[in-house]
Amino acid sequence: MTDANKLAIGIDVGGTFIKAGLVSSRSDVVAKGELPSEAERGPDHMIGRMAELATGLLKQVPLSASLTGIGLGIPGTLSHREGIVYSPPNLPGWRNVPVATKLAERVKLPVTLENDANCAAIAEYAGGAGRGSRHMVLLTLGTGVGGGIILDGKLWRGADECAAEIGHTIVHVGGRRCGCGQLGCLEAYASASSTAARAAEALTVGRSSSLSALKSLTAKDVLVAAKAGDALAREVWNDSCLYLAVACVNLHHLLNPDLIVLAGGMSAAGDDLLGPVREAVSSMGSRMINKPPKICLAKLGNDAGFIGAALGVFE
Amino acid sequence: MTDANKLAIGIDVGGTFIKAGLVSSRSDVVAKGELPSEAERGPDHMIGRMAELATGLLKQVPLSASLTGIGLGIPGTLSHREGIVYSPPNLPGWRNVPVATKLAERVKLPVTLENDANCAAIAEYAGGAGRGSRHMVLLTLGTGVGGGIILDGKLWRGADECAAEIGHTIVHVGGRRCGCGQLGCLEAYASASSTAARAAEALTVGRSSSLSALKSLTAKDVLVAAKAGDALAREVWNDSCLYLAVACVNLHHLLNPDLIVLAGGMSAAGDDLLGPVREAVSSMGSRMINKPPKICLAKLGNDAGFIGAALGVFE
Repeated sequence: MTDANKLAIGIDVGGTFIKAGLVSSRSDVVAKGELPSEAERGPDHMIGRMAELATGLLKQVPLSASLTGIGLGIPGTLSHREGIVYSPPNLPGWRNVPVATKLAERVKLPVTLENDANCAAIAEYAGGAGRGSRHMVLLTLGTGVGGGIILDGKLWRGADECAAEIGHTIVHVGGRRCGCGQLGCLEAYASASSTAARAAEALTVGRSSSLSALKSLTAKDVLVAAKAGDALAREVWNDSCLYLAVACVNLHHLLNPDLIVLAGGMSAAGDDLLGPVREAVSSMGSRMINKPPKICLAKLGNDAGFIGAALGVFE
Repeated sequence: MTDANKLAIGIDVGGTFIKAGLVSSRSDVVAKGELPSEAERGPDHMIGRMAELATGLLKQVPLSASLTGIGLGIPGTLSHREGIVYSPPNLPGWRNVPVATKLAERVKLPVTLENDANCAAIAEYAGGAGRGSRHMVLLTLGTGVGGGIILDGKLWRGADECAAEIGHTIVHVGGRRCGCGQLGCLEAYASASSTAARAAEALTVGRSSSLSALKSLTAKDVLVAAKAGDALAREVWNDSCLYLAVACVNLHHLLNPDLIVLAGGMSAAGDDLLGPVREAVSSMGSRMINKPPKICLAKLGNDAGFIGAALGVFE
């Protein structure tokens, strides 16, 4: 049996949609599907939706192939070893849920569990932006800032499985309050939500901007206004890029990876994100940096979550 | 032959003294010696001093033992793979010196080269504060802030051998200027030199303090005055501890080691350092931290440098 015939099902569990795919150990997506999460109906209902998606994909496993198992990617703190989700920020009612066991009972297949940002890192490393890399760090820039660290080709989870929470490293002592309670976290500056929030804060203190015509603000609104020449929006967007550059410089000094990948909602800005981040990295001017960190955009888009979850099964 | 009979010579090259020891693969120090560096006389003279120390120690190798080689620990950026020192901050005239080859030619023994903070980490991990640990990060707090990272029992050097430069991670965007050129580096706040410099700066803007009676200031002066009740000195010392706590929290979020070790000059403050650092870590209040990082002081003192350099030979 060739590698292409070794398959796993990956399921990417989000607050709005559950996405799933049948994936080969070589990262090929054989089939995929999705369902609304209906997160408000609680964990057991959602586990039912996951089982439904898995059952649908099981029927599409070719006769010539074997299915190794199911991999789940879920946001928030969790234990890969125990298969337990502690308290995901956007899934109401989830608290210490042994989701791997519960799903395995329903589908009669082994189930592994992984943090969603780790899944994105695994997927990009294996078949996306990280091809050719050996030591890669991925940042997911969405509601929060997540991270996944690959060292020597292996996911780094840490002593208590809570590594790679790059969004909660402090980059500005005494700075903005983060949702986690700390002051000055990267996430409080460089996430999509924080970018929008910083723009809104600037408006409330009376800064004039085209953004004040909008009822509610997103990071995308900030970028659009910045590109149209709005000075405040440009300042806010550039600050997000500056903080991301600081994260890249810090990763370089600490881990010296051969690649840093920017993923998640904000990365849709493409060169409007990458350009200013790279520029800010160069402008830091550290004499300790001989070779600046290599920074690029993720390539796999929304499929990265379930692809990485599936690849985790082959680990 | 038992492990105790496998020996290496470790040499710790500093700007003031060169310290060396004959060390077993089980971290036992069989013999040691030191010489003034006479750094002002340049690299070739210093390499001569290293050869002199090595030759002296060679004579003390017991007949029952075998000598595996010589390990050098040197401050600053260097290549372990190439055996080249790029530009150590406190060694005048050293620029791209192939010190491993040069010393090997003189002593007719294989020579390996390692950054001094990495050596301290290797030594503490093997036979000091890190016993029982598996994933350890060590911070050296002296003129600068250096670091050594052990993951899964192995030193982490990074893709281009420039990892673990924890002192140059940015903890305060737009903050104090670091010697490296960057703004807001950890080293610009939490090194012994920066602690003294921040106190001196506060005096020049007219803050009243018992410290103003001193001609020049050291971190130790700041601590002594803080303990005697001087308010400014207490503020400066506590700030150093706060920034170190930020470094510990960031290491926890990023790498989740099972132990963080504080070493170097400032660590001589003992509980006066450890207490406020641990307190500041707890006061950060991140809901992302279930189990706070374990932080302790180094145990091997000034011998750590040559012990780690020697142990690197057995790698």
